[in-house]
Amino acid sequence: MLDLIIRNGTIATASEQFRADIGVKSGKIAALGHDLGPAHDVIDAAGKFVLPGGIDSHVHIAQPSGPGLETADDFDTATLSALFGGNTTVMSFCLQQKGESLTKAVADYHARAQGKLYTDVAFHLIVSDPTPEVLEQELPELIARGYRSVKVFMTYENLRLNDAQLLSTMAAAKDGGAVVMVHAENEDVIAFLSEQHRRAGLNAPHGHATSRPVASEREATHRAMTLADIADVPVVIVHVSNGPTIEEIARARHRGQRVVAETCPQYLFLTEDDLLRDGWEGAKFVCSPPPRDKAAQDACWRGLETGLFDLFSSDHCPFMFARDKLSAQARASYRHIPNGIPGVETRLPLLFSEGVCKSRIDLCRFVGLTATNHARTYGLLPRKGTVAIGADADLAVWNPQTQWTIANSALHGASDYSPYEGMRVQGRPETVILRGKVMIRDGALQGTSEDGTYLDRSTEERGPTLATGAATDFEMQVRAPKRGVVHAR
Amino acid sequence: MLDLIIRNGTIATASEQFRADIGVKSGKIAALGHDLGPAHDVIDAAGKFVLPGGIDSHVHIAQPSGPGLETADDFDTATLSALFGGNTTVMSFCLQQKGESLTKAVADYHARAQGKLYTDVAFHLIVSDPTPEVLEQELPELIARGYRSVKVFMTYENLRLNDAQLLSTMAAAKDGGAVVMVHAENEDVIAFLSEQHRRAGLNAPHGHATSRPVASEREATHRAMTLADIADVPVVIVHVSNGPTIEEIARARHRGQRVVAETCPQYLFLTEDDLLRDGWEGAKFVCSPPPRDKAAQDACWRGLETGLFDLFSSDHCPFMFARDKLSAQARASYRHIPNGIPGVETRLPLLFSEGVCKSRIDLCRFVGLTATNHARTYGLLPRKGTVAIGADADLAVWNPQTQWTIANSALHGASDYSPYEGMRVQGRPETVILRGKVMIRDGALQGTSEDGTYLDRSTEERGPTLATGAATDFEMQVRAPKRGVVHAR
Amino acid sequence: MLDLIIRNGTIATASEQFRADIGVKSGKIAALGHDLGPAHDVIDAAGKFVLPGGIDSHVHIAQPSGPGLETADDFDTATLSALFGGNTTVMSFCLQQKGESLTKAVADYHARAQGKLYTDVAFHLIVSDPTPEVLEQELPELIARGYRSVKVFMTYENLRLNDAQLLSTMAAAKDGGAVVMVHAENEDVIAFLSEQHRRAGLNAPHGHATSRPVASEREATHRAMTLADIADVPVVIVHVSNGPTIEEIARARHRGQRVVAETCPQYLFLTEDDLLRDGWEGAKFVCSPPPRDKAAQDACWRGLETGLFDLFSSDHCPFMFARDKLSAQARASYRHIPNGIPGVETRLPLLFSEGVCKSRIDLCRFVGLTATNHARTYGLLPRKGTVAIGADADLAVWNPQTQWTIANSALHGASDYSPYEGMRVQGRPETVILRGKVMIRDGALQGTSEDGTYLDRSTEERGPTLATGAATDFEMQVRAPKRGVVHAR
Amino acid sequence: MLDLIIRNGTIATASEQFRADIGVKSGKIAALGHDLGPAHDVIDAAGKFVLPGGIDSHVHIAQPSGPGLETADDFDTATLSALFGGNTTVMSFCLQQKGESLTKAVADYHARAQGKLYTDVAFHLIVSDPTPEVLEQELPELIARGYRSVKVFMTYENLRLNDAQLLSTMAAAKDGGAVVMVHAENEDVIAFLSEQHRRAGLNAPHGHATSRPVASEREATHRAMTLADIADVPVVIVHVSNGPTIEEIARARHRGQRVVAETCPQYLFLTEDDLLRDGWEGAKFVCSPPPRDKAAQDACWRGLETGLFDLFSSDHCPFMFARDKLSAQARASYRHIPNGIPGVETRLPLLFSEGVCKSRIDLCRFVGLTATNHARTYGLLPRKGTVAIGADADLAVWNPQTQWTIANSALHGASDYSPYEGMRVQGRPETVILRGKVMIRDGALQGTSEDGTYLDRSTEERGPTLATGAATDFEMQVRAPKRGVVHAR
Repeated sequence: MLDLIIRNGTIATASEQFRADIGVKSGKIAALGHDLGPAHDVIDAAGKFVLPGGIDSHVHIAQPSGPGLETADDFDTATLSALFGGNTTVMSFCLQQKGESLTKAVADYHARAQGKLYTDVAFHLIVSDPTPEVLEQELPELIARGYRSVKVFMTYENLRLNDAQLLSTMAAAKDGGAVVMVHAENEDVIAFLSEQHRRAGLNAPHGHATSRPVASEREATHRAMTLADIADVPVVIVHVSNGPTIEEIARARHRGQRVVAETCPQYLFLTEDDLLRDGWEGAKFVCSPPPRDKAAQDACWRGLETGLFDLFSSDHCPFMFARDKLSAQARASYRHIPNGIPGVETRLPLLFSEGVCKSRIDLCRFVGLTATNHARTYGLLPRKGTVAIGADADLAVWNPQTQWTIANSALHGASDYSPYEGMRVQGRPETVILRGKVMIRDGALQGTSEDGTYLDRSTEERGPTLATGAATDFEMQVRAPKRGVVHAR
Repeated sequence: MLDLIIRNGTIATASEQFRADIGVKSGKIAALGHDLGPAHDVIDAAGKFVLPGGIDSHVHIAQPSGPGLETADDFDTATLSALFGGNTTVMSFCLQQKGESLTKAVADYHARAQGKLYTDVAFHLIVSDPTPEVLEQELPELIARGYRSVKVFMTYENLRLNDAQLLSTMAAAKDGGAVVMVHAENEDVIAFLSEQHRRAGLNAPHGHATSRPVASEREATHRAMTLADIADVPVVIVHVSNGPTIEEIARARHRGQRVVAETCPQYLFLTEDDLLRDGWEGAKFVCSPPPRDKAAQDACWRGLETGLFDLFSSDHCPFMFARDKLSAQARASYRHIPNGIPGVETRLPLLFSEGVCKSRIDLCRFVGLTATNHARTYGLLPRKGTVAIGADADLAVWNPQTQWTIANSALHGASDYSPYEGMRVQGRPETVILRGKVMIRDGALQGTSEDGTYLDRSTEERGPTLATGAATDFEMQVRAPKRGVVHAR
Repeated sequence: MLDLIIRNGTIATASEQFRADIGVKSGKIAALGHDLGPAHDVIDAAGKFVLPGGIDSHVHIAQPSGPGLETADDFDTATLSALFGGNTTVMSFCLQQKGESLTKAVADYHARAQGKLYTDVAFHLIVSDPTPEVLEQELPELIARGYRSVKVFMTYENLRLNDAQLLSTMAAAKDGGAVVMVHAENEDVIAFLSEQHRRAGLNAPHGHATSRPVASEREATHRAMTLADIADVPVVIVHVSNGPTIEEIARARHRGQRVVAETCPQYLFLTEDDLLRDGWEGAKFVCSPPPRDKAAQDACWRGLETGLFDLFSSDHCPFMFARDKLSAQARASYRHIPNGIPGVETRLPLLFSEGVCKSRIDLCRFVGLTATNHARTYGLLPRKGTVAIGADADLAVWNPQTQWTIANSALHGASDYSPYEGMRVQGRPETVILRGKVMIRDGALQGTSEDGTYLDRSTEERGPTLATGAATDFEMQVRAPKRGVVHAR
Repeated sequence: MLDLIIRNGTIATASEQFRADIGVKSGKIAALGHDLGPAHDVIDAAGKFVLPGGIDSHVHIAQPSGPGLETADDFDTATLSALFGGNTTVMSFCLQQKGESLTKAVADYHARAQGKLYTDVAFHLIVSDPTPEVLEQELPELIARGYRSVKVFMTYENLRLNDAQLLSTMAAAKDGGAVVMVHAENEDVIAFLSEQHRRAGLNAPHGHATSRPVASEREATHRAMTLADIADVPVVIVHVSNGPTIEEIARARHRGQRVVAETCPQYLFLTEDDLLRDGWEGAKFVCSPPPRDKAAQDACWRGLETGLFDLFSSDHCPFMFARDKLSAQARASYRHIPNGIPGVETRLPLLFSEGVCKSRIDLCRFVGLTATNHARTYGLLPRKGTVAIGADADLAVWNPQTQWTIANSALHGASDYSPYEGMRVQGRPETVILRGKVMIRDGALQGTSEDGTYLDRSTEERGPTLATGAATDFEMQVRAPKRGVVHAR
């Protein structure tokens, strides 16, 4: 007998939408059809959409951010917030501190996540100190153990790599079969302008925007893609914020490069003008890259509409407004305002409301942008990110009619504000299922922080799931085109 | 009890691949899962891929091509050939002759197809004479009846529309909710160069290539997209052959336009040099646009690899070499060589072999390019083009290991040659199922030309299939972004 | 003894500025140096700039513009106005009416100019009816007689050529050794939008702008350059108004094409918003292409600053506001407002003031944009457009300090308004010399309408001036690169 | 009485060509005209071109290049070679070694040049160690003393600056009013690929080309221009070698940046294949960036033809083949082959022959590319680089008919080979005049190494020459657009 049936819903995947019942057994999607027989539990989704649980592949959790400062959310609040936002998987970061072991960082983050997961979780590796030991020993071993995505920074004094380091890290990622994510802003440009701002006495939050101009992002993006081309590795350009950077990506693809492009809600719903708000409230919108102007917003929307972007992530990186963004140090200058904003819970409703309900994108693209493409890019497909036989039963039942207003008081993260406070949206995930377990039912939490688990992305794990020796989706993404033989079995 | 089960296969859709059994009932996919119970018939697909039946949305059948000349295939040979090539749907054209009624053309083509269909078929409308009556009466009525795609030509003296006609036809298509397909080559440029060729005594087949340069295609494509932008209608640029034209498409999308892009096997596997073959054999490769050079091939492959192209079609338009391409008239000058080549049966194996087996594209992209995106673009999704509950059970079971050599003698079309003769390929569709009927079983034909049917694309037909009042996939494609309300039910 | 010396001035050419006295003899510049000896007349230019007389190569004079309508200026008022604006040469148009002889049009315009010239004049040929007779007989003969520039239109129902006609006219121009000027706007797009405007009841002047969008200019420009590339002829894109069109030009050059680009004051100093002025005053700014927005202005300025533009012309095409732009017919709809604005007298002061005095361009670029490049493009160099031994003594003495306000009442053209009324400018030509004759001295007219002459641009005329059998400047512009031999003698 | 008259020649400047006699007095051009009266000396230039003496603004002389290695030419051989190549000014480099004083380097190079100059010379400053002292004290002072051009490197381990250093150096240049020259190749990319080459045992000269791919130049160029934009300083991109880099420059200009672009003979006349020559002969062609392929050559020619390039320089940096390029160390790996080739004597004849005589560019563009634009860019106009009253009488009399073959044995530099050996060219400078002194007369040397002098580019020097308080040519180039007042006096 099936464990659970979701009945009468309209299902959407990244490629089509259709009506069917979904039968769940042992946490997996076991049957699609009608009249699936009895089950221990039944959810009626008539008039609702049944979507793959969202995957947010860009979420900073329990991450140190300078001396004495850590992101506001621990794993429990972050994943609870994600869950209420319709997500069943988040991908967070294991950040290597300079001088530290990467392997130790991984162990550390596993410990932080332990027992605190309302969703499943996987980890990207942040390499900030690519010593020979890291590149030749730790990284290959970790990639082999399933940490198949490596993030590098071109900004932040304590994290940035220079071009030589970027190349050697990319080369190590390529050798291991990992994809490389790049935060592309030119640190030296930013430092130069920040110093000019400092001399000019420009310390208010808006200086954060003017000291990180579009040109610094466009330049770093072009450079990152060139380096990835040299190292022959696929690259993910995260949090793209504007038209000129988009143009660089389109040109790199026209040259033949495999570039995955990500944008985030802050580049569609906020602008630089928000950093001008009174009473140091602008600090609530300080993140990097900064929100830009209306033209940049339009360009990002076009990028979603025309298929340029593959990923829509939150870049959730929350801080407390009162404690962190209004601290004495932060009020002295925007340079000391912690960098990042919350968003893991609002990501899906914002895009559903403004994108799907207003017909800018269709539901299939919504699913691709918020779930399937994340799974494909980072080696979780078809276990995660879609509705298919054998996939984990990670599902969100959306009521497309619900109208509501974003209020931080009703959200589930630790941060004391939402940058989207007061926005009116349509559509909401009412019921969220994680590997067959109903975590949220009609808005009420039923799951616990013991329910989530860590997702191993090692080859061994993927093998049986993919059910084929053929070049797999994941391998397609992370390896350069090569001659190969295709088998199905 | 189910009518048919396809067991143990590896299924691929445009978004993922997974292992499951497929249960068919009344011609539809009724169940996905394992242990689906008994069925009247079972196909074992162990070690095979089970893909959606191919959709070839660009096939010329029984189409007049100048005085006394018609394409070599009638509907029975064309669809039989398509079927053996792994397709279950072809989209052909109803060509309005100048001075004639479009409605009459539609009736005429229906008559030609009647009882001669080994696959399902739908029709695009070719408007060659956009009189007020056509635009104000016939076209709106035909679109409402489900002919939701209109093709226009910018070349061929008897078919070409001028810009005013293009605009008025596009506007009528938009009003009705149809998508517009454009053959984009500048006829005046071609005529100018052809006249120069004539004066210079250049009459051999290769003159076909040099009189239709890349610039004439790039120009017409830029113009077509501009006109579509003015008329505010989504546009399909068919048979794109080269890098500069691809660049125009990328730029139009960057400006925010919805452009669907198609390429064809001839631009990946042939070059202009083939037109230089001895003994007037070059005539076998005369099609428009002509195959280009190696750099153009590379650009088209990059366009497939990086996702620029949505559609991979055959532009099947076969003629007899001996009778048509070697006629006294044709031998007098390339200008009289009938324009077009066969390809409906070789399209899928060529791309599977060179694209999938050589890891240039993954299987999901293969499915998207050859089936799902056609269905989406032309209003057949989710009835056609995917493996989903409720969809027509149109399936092709592929053996990815089979190695074989293309020989026209073993193909099923009427043409007396294949431009791909002698090419070695890997992978072949062994079993093909149309709406649950096994048409080909392990290479042996079981179906008849009575089995195919015409596909009505009117709203009424799509309604229940899509199961939602939400903006549908199809509507997404054919309408400009607008404010809307989303319902699921 | 010299006829005239201009003493103590700072001279500028397109390549440098320097201090010297200029000696004039028999209408030519005979000496450059100091202490040139006695002369019949001396002008002291201390503290002034001595520039080559401006060449305005885009001036419509005495040109019919629809039934019963002609441009406001006859040759005498136009050239007087030009002279007071610092010009010594204007290039006007011989417009062939459909069905008429081009040769007859030339004779006709010569007659109109006869005895009415305060500046020298040369004629471009406007071909509106490229019959075989025109292309095979009239045009070759006229080009040989020195009419070495041919203008074609892609807009205006009575003037536009289709692509076949553009190609055949371009080919004839190439054969004769003439350059081709193109007014690039897509007439069919404009007609389509105008009809939409008509149906929507949009008749006010601003409809002129919205019915001629940037896309129609960008498209036509791309097409014109493609056709010129096919015909292998250098092309002048006149009156470029915006960034996307500029981008097309830059791309064509990157492909290797010889494209000369022109912009005009209306695209630097006016915007589309001027067409919104009350009381039908917007009609004063109706010209084609229309002024665009601020971003387009910025793009045009950048094009001047960075050297993209070769020519800065007025496109002077004046009408009477009261009589023509406010006529009953014109007030019925913007479609009937005569198309064009005056500007031959204000062109140089506007650019001098906003460009040179505000350091956007240097004086050498000013001279190139307003004189030398015109002469080079149209075959008048080195007779006209520079300060060099043997050149015609066409000079303007500018006082760079004068501050003044543009008022139509103080201008010398026939039109009853200036679109630049009330603008404050710096710098003014005080003394203007035509072939050694002081036409204006310290602001006072001394010349007569008998002083100007027609400029023959036939080869015979140019030969001795160029003093070399080498490929000449002009030939460089109008011919494709070819193998040649260089001689000096 | 005049000192010298050059009679009957055809003179060309960057803006026009004309026939006149040139009168020289006290080293300056004192008169242009005919019948200039008596003179101490007369040169008859009938049938010849009289051009401004070439300025080669990119010449490495007596420059250390690694331990124990210096460029082959000292100032006397370099300037003698330049002189015979039709040049009267070379601009060389004062190279600051890391840890050294820039001022000391300047003094050092002055000493090296002392008494060894057959042409005039000016110096660019190479900053390799931008310490606070250099940026805040030495550089401002040196710029004020007339060293108004600063060169920075993005490659060569001992010279390269990182982005922060580039920005601070650019900012210092801007503050002082200097222009910045950039050698744009990404050192880290080159080091990464070189290490790969080393591991793969690729040590032959051709590895120099493959380890410095186009992408490394395109990337660095885009970055350099972005940094210059941030620092708000005009930038010279030296030795551009290929199409993609050219495209970056065109795009930067389209964004509004002031970018001066230079190319060199090696990118027009050599290719990467030359590095494949047998017997380690490929080493003769090792320079950076390396010569590319035929498509890159074509792109560079198009850049000259269409006006994209402002400067054509030699990047003369000669080494001995036998001693330096065939040394034991050099033969061990291309990584140790000294980087650079000779070219100061062949630059002008190569471009004259292939560019002017074959009608790819006209004579005015030749003059601009080889003289005037150098003077304008680096603050020497109108003293140098043109034929104008008051300018230094630096002239080259060219016989455009002479056909000859390049043979190193007949050249005057110290290097033991020419990369252009055996090339057949047309046109040669027969007589070269430096500040009125006939240095070479009909091919025979008459001047001495005492005749050249150092060119002070300080403001004081320029003032009287420019004869105006207006924004000058030079200031136009080196300063951002600003509000200003124009005076002539």
